[in-house]
Amino acid sequence: MPDSRDLLETFENQFPDRDYKIEIVAPEFTSVCPKTGQPDFATITFSYTPDKFCVELKSLKMYLQSYRNEGIFYEHVTNTILDDLVATVRPRWMKIEAAFNARGGITETVSAQFASAM
Amino acid sequence: MPDSRDLLETFENQFPDRDYKIEIVAPEFTSVCPKTGQPDFATITFSYTPDKFCVELKSLKMYLQSYRNEGIFYEHVTNTILDDLVATVRPRWMKIEAAFNARGGITETVSAQFASAM
Amino acid sequence: MPDSRDLLETFENQFPDRDYKIEIVAPEFTSVCPKTGQPDFATITFSYTPDKFCVELKSLKMYLQSYRNEGIFYEHVTNTILDDLVATVRPRWMKIEAAFNARGGITETVSAQFASAM
Amino acid sequence: MPDSRDLLETFENQFPDRDYKIEIVAPEFTSVCPKTGQPDFATITFSYTPDKFCVELKSLKMYLQSYRNEGIFYEHVTNTILDDLVATVRPRWMKIEAAFNARGGITETVSAQFASAM
Amino acid sequence: MPDSRDLLETFENQFPDRDYKIEIVAPEFTSVCPKTGQPDFATITFSYTPDKFCVELKSLKMYLQSYRNEGIFYEHVTNTILDDLVATVRPRWMKIEAAFNARGGITETVSAQFASAM
Amino acid sequence: MPDSRDLLETFENQFPDRDYKIEIVAPEFTSVCPKTGQPDFATITFSYTPDKFCVELKSLKMYLQSYRNEGIFYEHVTNTILDDLVATVRPRWMKIEAAFNARGGITETVSAQFASAM
Amino acid sequence: MPDSRDLLETFENQFPDRDYKIEIVAPEFTSVCPKTGQPDFATITFSYTPDKFCVELKSLKMYLQSYRNEGIFYEHVTNTILDDLVATVRPRWMKIEAAFNARGGITETVSAQFASAM
Amino acid sequence: MPDSRDLLETFENQFPDRDYKIEIVAPEFTSVCPKTGQPDFATITFSYTPDKFCVELKSLKMYLQSYRNEGIFYEHVTNTILDDLVATVRPRWMKIEAAFNARGGITETVSAQFASAM
Amino acid sequence: MPDSRDLLETFENQFPDRDYKIEIVAPEFTSVCPKTGQPDFATITFSYTPDKFCVELKSLKMYLQSYRNEGIFYEHVTNTILDDLVATVRPRWMKIEAAFNARGGITETVSAQFASAM
Amino acid sequence: MPDSRDLLETFENQFPDRDYKIEIVAPEFTSVCPKTGQPDFATITFSYTPDKFCVELKSLKMYLQSYRNEGIFYEHVTNTILDDLVATVRPRWMKIEAAFNARGGITETVSAQFASAM
Repeated sequence: MPDSRDLLETFENQFPDRDYKIEIVAPEFTSVCPKTGQPDFATITFSYTPDKFCVELKSLKMYLQSYRNEGIFYEHVTNTILDDLVATVRPRWMKIEAAFNARGGITETVSAQFASAM
Repeated sequence: MPDSRDLLETFENQFPDRDYKIEIVAPEFTSVCPKTGQPDFATITFSYTPDKFCVELKSLKMYLQSYRNEGIFYEHVTNTILDDLVATVRPRWMKIEAAFNARGGITETVSAQFASAM
Repeated sequence: MPDSRDLLETFENQFPDRDYKIEIVAPEFTSVCPKTGQPDFATITFSYTPDKFCVELKSLKMYLQSYRNEGIFYEHVTNTILDDLVATVRPRWMKIEAAFNARGGITETVSAQFASAM
Repeated sequence: MPDSRDLLETFENQFPDRDYKIEIVAPEFTSVCPKTGQPDFATITFSYTPDKFCVELKSLKMYLQSYRNEGIFYEHVTNTILDDLVATVRPRWMKIEAAFNARGGITETVSAQFASAM
Repeated sequence: MPDSRDLLETFENQFPDRDYKIEIVAPEFTSVCPKTGQPDFATITFSYTPDKFCVELKSLKMYLQSYRNEGIFYEHVTNTILDDLVATVRPRWMKIEAAFNARGGITETVSAQFASAM
Repeated sequence: MPDSRDLLETFENQFPDRDYKIEIVAPEFTSVCPKTGQPDFATITFSYTPDKFCVELKSLKMYLQSYRNEGIFYEHVTNTILDDLVATVRPRWMKIEAAFNARGGITETVSAQFASAM
Repeated sequence: MPDSRDLLETFENQFPDRDYKIEIVAPEFTSVCPKTGQPDFATITFSYTPDKFCVELKSLKMYLQSYRNEGIFYEHVTNTILDDLVATVRPRWMKIEAAFNARGGITETVSAQFASAM
Repeated sequence: MPDSRDLLETFENQFPDRDYKIEIVAPEFTSVCPKTGQPDFATITFSYTPDKFCVELKSLKMYLQSYRNEGIFYEHVTNTILDDLVATVRPRWMKIEAAFNARGGITETVSAQFASAM
Repeated sequence: MPDSRDLLETFENQFPDRDYKIEIVAPEFTSVCPKTGQPDFATITFSYTPDKFCVELKSLKMYLQSYRNEGIFYEHVTNTILDDLVATVRPRWMKIEAAFNARGGITETVSAQFASAM
Repeated sequence: MPDSRDLLETFENQFPDRDYKIEIVAPEFTSVCPKTGQPDFATITFSYTPDKFCVELKSLKMYLQSYRNEGIFYEHVTNTILDDLVATVRPRWMKIEAAFNARGGITETVSAQFASAM
C-alpha cells in the first residue's frame, strides 16, 4: 500500500456557513490484485460536505494514480482511500463508493461512509 | 466574478397560496478556469418553490451568459449563483446543482440549497 | 385562457373503498407563448387517487386540446389545469407535472399538488 | 368479466418464517375496451410477500389470458385482478400495477395495493 | 439441492469498526426447473455489511456453479442461498435478489433479507 | 386463417410521379400458436413505395386485429400478410418484418419482400 | 393547405464549390387530421446539399408553424413540404423524412427525395 | 462434443418461391471451457433463407441445451453449430454469430456463414 | 473570423505506408451567433487519413477555443475549420461534422469532406 | 515500447476452409502518455479472419498488459499492436480500433487495417 496520503492537497472552503455537497466521479482507477497480479479497474465516486477545506482535484487524481502498480484488495483500498481523505479534508460527512469491473463474470462494489462527531 | 445579479428579472407569482415546484435545467453554462484559463462547461439545474416572485427565464439565460469569460472555481460559481437567485427571487426553498464536464478524466458536481426562515 | 373546464367528464369510481392511484401521461400538449406568439410543447403527467369519480380519458384529451391556440405562461397553465381537474374530479389527492420543451437551450418543469381536507 | 378466479393455483410457501418479496412482471396482458371494442394492451407488475401460499406462475398466465376477449375498463380490471389474487393467495401484502399502452396519444397506469389486517 | 455450503470461503474483515456495504452482482447463475427439466437463468445480487468476515469471490462463484444441474424452484433457491451465506459469512445485514429470465413471457424476481439480532 | 383481405382499404396516391417511401410500425399484433393454443405477440413493420394506392391506416389496423384469435405459424402469417397487402395496394416495392416476442427464451423475426416486375 | 411557401427565406451559400451536407431536425411539427379534426405530431428531418442557397432556419420554423391548424394527410404534407423547399432553395439534392406519432397504436413515417437533373 | 445433430427437427417451408429471411436469437446458450472447466455463456443469433425446410424452434432449443455440460472452444462450437444446421435445414444461405460473455475483461464474438452452391 | 489557423500544430505520421483512420470528437465547441449575439454550442467530429502529418490534439483544442467569442454562422464555421485543417495537416482524406445544439426547437448538423487529388 | 510480441500465443484454426470472422473487445487497455506521464485508457477492438492460426485470448491479455507502464502515443500504439498481431497470427484480414478516453474534453479513436496479399 503506497504512503501516498501526502499527495492530497486542499484549498479553503469559501462557503463554510452553508452545508452543501460535492460529488466527484473518477472512472479511471486501476490497481493490481495482490493474489493474481492482474490489474483491477474501478469507478470511484466521492460525495462529501466540506467543513473548512475542499479537496483539490488534480492532487486527488495524482493520489489515485499512486495505486496504479500496488497490490491491494477491493475492501482494503476503498476503506483506505476513505481514511486518507477524511484525515486530509476533514469533511462534515463523506461517502466513497468503488465499483470494480467484473472478474470471472462477477462484479463487486464497496461503499463506506464517514460522519464527523459534530 | 461579474456584477451580474442585476441582470436577473422576476415576475409576480399568480398562485402564492399553493406550494408548488419549478425546475429549470440549463445545459449550456460555460465559464473559465481561473488557474488554467481553460473553459469549463456545466449543466445547471435549479429547483425552487416560489413565494411572491418567479424568475424570468430569458433574464436567467442572460445572467448565466455573463459568466462566459469569467475565471471562477466550481464551488464558488455554484454558491454565488444560489446567493444571487435567492436575493432576487426570494423563494420559499431553492436548490442548485452544477454538474461540470470531466477534466483529467474526473467529473465534479456541486449542489447547494436554501430554505427561508419562514 | 379558455373556458374549457366544462369539457372534462367523469365516470363513477367503482372501488371507492380502496385508496388506489391512477397516473396519466399526455405527451402532446401544446399552447402558445403569450409574449412571443411561438408555440410551446409539454408532456403533462397527472397522478391522483380517485374518490367518487375518475376522469374520462377522451374528455381529458379534448380539454387539453382546448389550449392549442391559447396564449398562457408555464406556471399559469399548470396551476389552472390542476384547479380545473380538482373542481371536476374531486380526487382525494392529485399531482400535475408539466415538462416543457427547451426554449433558448433552457428547459422548465412545473409541478403542483392538491390534497383534500379529509 | 370472466369467472376466471378458479384458474389461479397456489403452492405452499416453504419459508413462511421470513418476510420476503416476490415480483412478477407480465408484459403481454391484453383485453378489450368495452366502449370501442378495440384491444387494450398492458404490462402488469405484481409484488407481494407470501404468507402460506405462493402463486403458481403457469396458472397466473392462464388466468391473465382469460381476459383476452373480455370488455373491461382499466380501473376495473386492475382492481379485480388484485381482488382475485388476494382471495386466492392470501398474501401478507400485495401491490398490482397495470401500465396500459397509449390510446389517442395518452397513457394510463393504475396501481392498487392490499395489506392484510395482521 | 446440492450440499454445497462447504464451498463458501471467507476472509477476515479488516475494517470491523466501520459499518460499510459490499454489493456483488452475479449475472451468470443457472439451475434447472424441477418440473420441466428446462434450464433457468438468473442474475443474483448480494448486498451485505460484513461483521468479522467477507465472502471470498472465487469461492462464491464455485458455490453458485454447484446449482448448474440441480432442479430447484425460484423461491427455494433464493432463500437457500441466503441461508448458506448467512451461516458462513455471519454478516450484520444481508439481502439477496434473484432476477430470473422470462419464462412464458413472464419474469419473476425473488428477494429476501437477513438482519442479525445484534 | 381469416378471410380478412377484404378488410384492407386504399386511397389514391397523390404523388405517383415520385418514388417515395412509407414505413408503418404496428407493435400490437397478436395471434395464437396453432400447436400450443398460447397467444403470440409481434411488432410488424411495413415499408413500401406506393404506385397508384396507399394503404388506409385504420383498415390496416382492423385487418391486423382479424388475426387475434387465429392459430397461425410465424412464417405463415408474415408471408400471408405480405401477399394480402401486395394484392390490395399493388405497391412498386414492399417489405414486411414481423418480430415475435421471446418463447422459451428464443426470439424469431421473419422478413419478406416484394418487388413489382415493372 | 396554407399558401405558405412565401414564408421560406434563403441566404447565399458561401461554399458553392464544395458538395457538403446540411441536416435539420424539427421535432415540434403539428398539423390536424382532415378526417377526425384531431392534432397530428411529427418530427421532420431535412437533409440537403446546397447549390446557390441555404434555407434560413427561422423562416423554416415559421413555415412549419403555418401548418399548425391545417387539415392535411401524412403523405400529402411530406411531399408538399419537399416541393416547397425544392422550389425555394433549389438544392443539388434534398431528402425529407416525417415521423408521425402513433395513432391507434400504429406509427407512420413518410420519406421523399429530390435530385436535381444536373 | 455431443452427437446432438439428431435433435434438430425441421418443418416444410410453405413459401419456397420467395427468398425471405428468418432471424433467431437465443440468448441463453451455455457450454463449458475445456481448459478451465468454467462455464461459458453466449447469445447465438441465426439468420437464414429457407429452401425446402425451416428449423423447428423447440428442437433448436433442445439442440442448444445439449452443449450445457460439454467442454468446447468458442471457434469450434460456432462452426460446429453452423455445420449441424446447414446439414439438417439445407438453407439457401445461413449466418451464425456467437457473442460470448466477457472472460478476464475480454469479450469474443465468432461469426461464420454458409451459402449454397445454387 | 479569427486568424487562428496558425494555432494548429502537427507531428510526423510514423506509419505513412498504411492508410489508417483517426477520428476526433470535440463536444465542447462554442461560438457566437452573428445575428443575435447569443452563444452557439456544437459537437465537432473530425475523421481523416493522415499522409505525412497528424494534427496535435492540444493545438486543435486551442484552435477550436479561438472561436469562443467570434460571431460566425453554422455553415461558415464548419467549412472554414475544414479548410484550416486541410491546409495544415494535408491529409489524404478528411471529413468534418458539426452538430449544433437546438435553437428554437430546431437542430442543424453541417458536414463537409475533402479528398486529396492523389 | 515493450519487446512484448513474444507474449502472443496462437492455436491452430480448425476450420481453415471457411472464411469466418472473430471479434475481440478489450476494454481495459491502459498505457502512459509519453509527454505528460499521465495514464491513457482505451477500448481496443480486434476483428480478423484467421488463416492457419487463432490468437489465444489469455496471451493477448498478457500482451496488452505489457503496455501498462509504457509511454507511447495513440497512433503509435495502435499501429504497433496491429503489426505485432499480424506478424504472429498471420490472418487473412485484420482490423484494430483503439478508442481512447477523453483528454481535455476531446476523444480520439485510431483504426488501422491489414489485408494479406493472397
